[in-house]
Amino acid sequence: MQLGLVGLGKMGFNMRERLRAAGHDVIGYDRNPEISDTESLADLAAKLDAPRVVWVMVPAGEPTRQTVAELGELLSDGDLVIDGGNSRFTDDTVNADLLAKNGIGYLDCGVSGGVWGKDNGYGLMVGGAEADVERAMPIFDALRPEGPREEGFAHAGAVGAGHFAKMVHNGIEYGLMQAYAEGYELLTAAEAVTDVPAVLKAWTRGTVVRSWLLDLLVKALDEDPGLSELTGYVEDSGEGRWTVEEAINHAVPAPVISAALFARFASRQADSPAMKAVSALRNQFGGHAVHKAGPTSGAGEVK
Amino acid sequence: MQLGLVGLGKMGFNMRERLRAAGHDVIGYDRNPEISDTESLADLAAKLDAPRVVWVMVPAGEPTRQTVAELGELLSDGDLVIDGGNSRFTDDTVNADLLAKNGIGYLDCGVSGGVWGKDNGYGLMVGGAEADVERAMPIFDALRPEGPREEGFAHAGAVGAGHFAKMVHNGIEYGLMQAYAEGYELLTAAEAVTDVPAVLKAWTRGTVVRSWLLDLLVKALDEDPGLSELTGYVEDSGEGRWTVEEAINHAVPAPVISAALFARFASRQADSPAMKAVSALRNQFGGHAVHKAGPTSGAGEVK
Amino acid sequence: MQLGLVGLGKMGFNMRERLRAAGHDVIGYDRNPEISDTESLADLAAKLDAPRVVWVMVPAGEPTRQTVAELGELLSDGDLVIDGGNSRFTDDTVNADLLAKNGIGYLDCGVSGGVWGKDNGYGLMVGGAEADVERAMPIFDALRPEGPREEGFAHAGAVGAGHFAKMVHNGIEYGLMQAYAEGYELLTAAEAVTDVPAVLKAWTRGTVVRSWLLDLLVKALDEDPGLSELTGYVEDSGEGRWTVEEAINHAVPAPVISAALFARFASRQADSPAMKAVSALRNQFGGHAVHKAGPTSGAGEVK
Amino acid sequence: MQLGLVGLGKMGFNMRERLRAAGHDVIGYDRNPEISDTESLADLAAKLDAPRVVWVMVPAGEPTRQTVAELGELLSDGDLVIDGGNSRFTDDTVNADLLAKNGIGYLDCGVSGGVWGKDNGYGLMVGGAEADVERAMPIFDALRPEGPREEGFAHAGAVGAGHFAKMVHNGIEYGLMQAYAEGYELLTAAEAVTDVPAVLKAWTRGTVVRSWLLDLLVKALDEDPGLSELTGYVEDSGEGRWTVEEAINHAVPAPVISAALFARFASRQADSPAMKAVSALRNQFGGHAVHKAGPTSGAGEVK
Repeated sequence: MQLGLVGLGKMGFNMRERLRAAGHDVIGYDRNPEISDTESLADLAAKLDAPRVVWVMVPAGEPTRQTVAELGELLSDGDLVIDGGNSRFTDDTVNADLLAKNGIGYLDCGVSGGVWGKDNGYGLMVGGAEADVERAMPIFDALRPEGPREEGFAHAGAVGAGHFAKMVHNGIEYGLMQAYAEGYELLTAAEAVTDVPAVLKAWTRGTVVRSWLLDLLVKALDEDPGLSELTGYVEDSGEGRWTVEEAINHAVPAPVISAALFARFASRQADSPAMKAVSALRNQFGGHAVHKAGPTSGAGEVK
Repeated sequence: MQLGLVGLGKMGFNMRERLRAAGHDVIGYDRNPEISDTESLADLAAKLDAPRVVWVMVPAGEPTRQTVAELGELLSDGDLVIDGGNSRFTDDTVNADLLAKNGIGYLDCGVSGGVWGKDNGYGLMVGGAEADVERAMPIFDALRPEGPREEGFAHAGAVGAGHFAKMVHNGIEYGLMQAYAEGYELLTAAEAVTDVPAVLKAWTRGTVVRSWLLDLLVKALDEDPGLSELTGYVEDSGEGRWTVEEAINHAVPAPVISAALFARFASRQADSPAMKAVSALRNQFGGHAVHKAGPTSGAGEVK
Repeated sequence: MQLGLVGLGKMGFNMRERLRAAGHDVIGYDRNPEISDTESLADLAAKLDAPRVVWVMVPAGEPTRQTVAELGELLSDGDLVIDGGNSRFTDDTVNADLLAKNGIGYLDCGVSGGVWGKDNGYGLMVGGAEADVERAMPIFDALRPEGPREEGFAHAGAVGAGHFAKMVHNGIEYGLMQAYAEGYELLTAAEAVTDVPAVLKAWTRGTVVRSWLLDLLVKALDEDPGLSELTGYVEDSGEGRWTVEEAINHAVPAPVISAALFARFASRQADSPAMKAVSALRNQFGGHAVHKAGPTSGAGEVK
Repeated sequence: MQLGLVGLGKMGFNMRERLRAAGHDVIGYDRNPEISDTESLADLAAKLDAPRVVWVMVPAGEPTRQTVAELGELLSDGDLVIDGGNSRFTDDTVNADLLAKNGIGYLDCGVSGGVWGKDNGYGLMVGGAEADVERAMPIFDALRPEGPREEGFAHAGAVGAGHFAKMVHNGIEYGLMQAYAEGYELLTAAEAVTDVPAVLKAWTRGTVVRSWLLDLLVKALDEDPGLSELTGYVEDSGEGRWTVEEAINHAVPAPVISAALFARFASRQADSPAMKAVSALRNQFGGHAVHKAGPTSGAGEVK
């Protein structure tokens, strides 16, 4: 079928490839003219046959909200917009309501798979009306991995459910990554274990902890056995924060996901104000040795 | 090759099957005569041709230490004992030293795969001397999954390294399980997501969080969509505790693995003394409503 | 000086007492006519001499926003409203802007001290313009504890700073309470320690952990040595959640405060969906014993 | 009464002062001859009148065990040794049994108060036999703060209970410090709060979070408002680790105390292997920007 695709960054570009390989007619728009198939959003809208389906794959937040608002002006009654980015689910009802004023349908679709999705397919979680989901199913079927539809695609619920599910997916991802990371660090700290990468590789088949993330960690260690080319500074991209916030909203205990998030925050601090405060307290009550800033180092004693 | 196998519980029984299917000559001993191939450990030792290899697959702790000690008396110079149970790695040098007095070799082997290992193969992590590892390799090759040896088997280091690696494996497992569990609970708490099992199933292909544990959670939800046949009381079996203790020993931060462990502890408390203390404090300073034990319920106000 | 005081619940009632004892002319309004000095908010406004100062002490959220909006209509240019409740700091600029339209000033004041504040005085953290703070200083001086002003009162910053500081105060409070609670539980679990209340009482002088919260815990244990009259079900009243959310907003690691919050969430769950999921996973991969819901109990084995 | 005091470091030195000020006859021994009253342990034993009481105040672990062993040779039936250091409680029964062979009694005494104890008195938690406790009571009374005995002294239980209680005391201390520290960091991160030290000072009277640790933090901020003379590198001295280990032994959830401990571990890592692993994973699946070690910085995009 025909699809307009807005945003041809790493994800959108690959998706265009995968969709075309599956025989779909994809017209892409990107601000970068070198990769764009059209000159403008308006041009994209003009090139599509009504009723149109437009997939938005731009950064979450203002860029997505802005693109949806523009599409609300350019599209018409009976058209359909799908937000496939990592938008916060709270944006979805706003977007859907805005588009509904002009009779335009809306689906939110969480997309997982990263740069590997082009070949492996993408896991998809969709929120919105059943009829809209059915209408876009050929696209979903082309994007999702081979195999039974339900193992790579879910209609999670009403508008917002797709991004909510993707948010939780990413929150879980934080926890999984941190669990492997803590185990990895403990293995490297143990005297007895002399070949840490071999141990992780031995976990990739048969064990309880086997997973795609483990495969990737093994691959990373194959390429750089001591991870010496990286620092431990780790960004976070929003969904982990939102997951913890939603856990709080719903009074759901989330000790693991929050611990994983906070570990990232801490990894980015050259010097922690909190730990300075702890150091100051130790110094105050016990005369404990503290690390002084600057050239000289403090001396101290046990309390 | 010929192997003596001590302990034919759920794990050992399956391993005997898998080894025999691979053409090995396994003589099993279990206290339960209905499944045992021999009458006693002494009988087992007598039936094996020297130099003998005996795999111990009994519960960790006293049962394993006891079995190894008995084998130290029954076996002879040049024989080899492999502890495949979930022993704490600190037991391994004790066992190895004990056996070495009689010239008997020792390997520790962490085995992962649960009840699925019989068909899928087991992930194996081994500690000990290279020559001993080579000698037992036909056994390891039969137990590990199909595929490249290094994806299901590692010689992790000296004696103790196998069990250390398995301990960390299980610690990671705690973190992974808790991450999925927190995400699952949050999905069930969200109004927007109307089909939680479908969402989890949609993650099984293509997504970043796909894993064998996720497959199992999907399977559990297929069998019991609301998990209504279970309670939230969760045991722990030692390795999670040891992982956190070793993290402490090595000053490795383990916030995720420890949070997963503590969630299990809390799950087993009908009423938490700590939370009673928090409740008492809230009552003291603010006249906050507290839940009184017994038939009457307390009234309270905001502080 | 003269003060209108809206809300005569546990906190407001006590504050009226303390202010009157200090010689101030307090006219209180409450929906409960038995304790109210006036018939209505309008009546309160009419009884006060211009320029008026009105302290709002009603539940945070809608009640406070509603009261402030009504005061915006009833008061006049040059008057001053102080929100002393536990409002989220994000409400403060909204309230201040609303009142500013009619020339009415606004201060937000975090108030700590609970039911003890009437006699001990209340710790106060204020946000707003310096001139407004100065104007209300006689009230602040009467409410705060004896001693140097700066040890019970701070002008924390612009509008919102008072409630932000109070929010953090309460977040810290969650962490402190949980720390004592964990220690208390561990003492009760130790065989060696035969007199737990005596140990806590011995900490009240001289030790590093002495505090007012500890004094209260000792008092609670004096009254009920085993805390047997309470359950471990613990509510939370908002500020702890907001603290973690703000920590996330500012990328500040808050592992302790969030752990304290999640412990409260967990304390209120009769059965945790997350832990059911963990139990289901253990059952799936290892055939581990699980606690089945209902009359029959499952049997199982170690994996 | 007469007391032998072994170890005149920061704690022991101050205690000698306080005891002498209370009229006790203290003979101190330290390896440093400039502050020692005697030449050797043997000399100390010779100078004391039987039945002797000797207080050991040397670093925990080997130094204390060694000192106790030597005293076991030098002292006689009817004498009494008190270990006032921060020994792990598991050392106490070993020490007690060793001394009992020669008829020497043993008490373990947790001592809290840091460098302030000389003037304020020390909080004391004692384990051992009632008769031994009674015998040493004049010493305890001199060391503890003014006020009712039970507010600065507890006979916590049998041998080991004093150090167990002190261990828990210190574990709680970790949690308290981290709670204040997280709140402090959040205050410094908020735009609205312009005077963070003033806010903390305003908490010292009347509020729920007032405590001696808060007073010390206020003092530290008075001396160095931005804590700019310190780094965030924080040591730990054993009791926090033991507390978490004992929590694990007793299946007591300790999320706050463990989080405080792990924050210290993380504060000491120039670069975290775990976070490198997380970074490697993000890079693998999403082509996320990662911080490369060395001169060049990686570019990346959102997944």
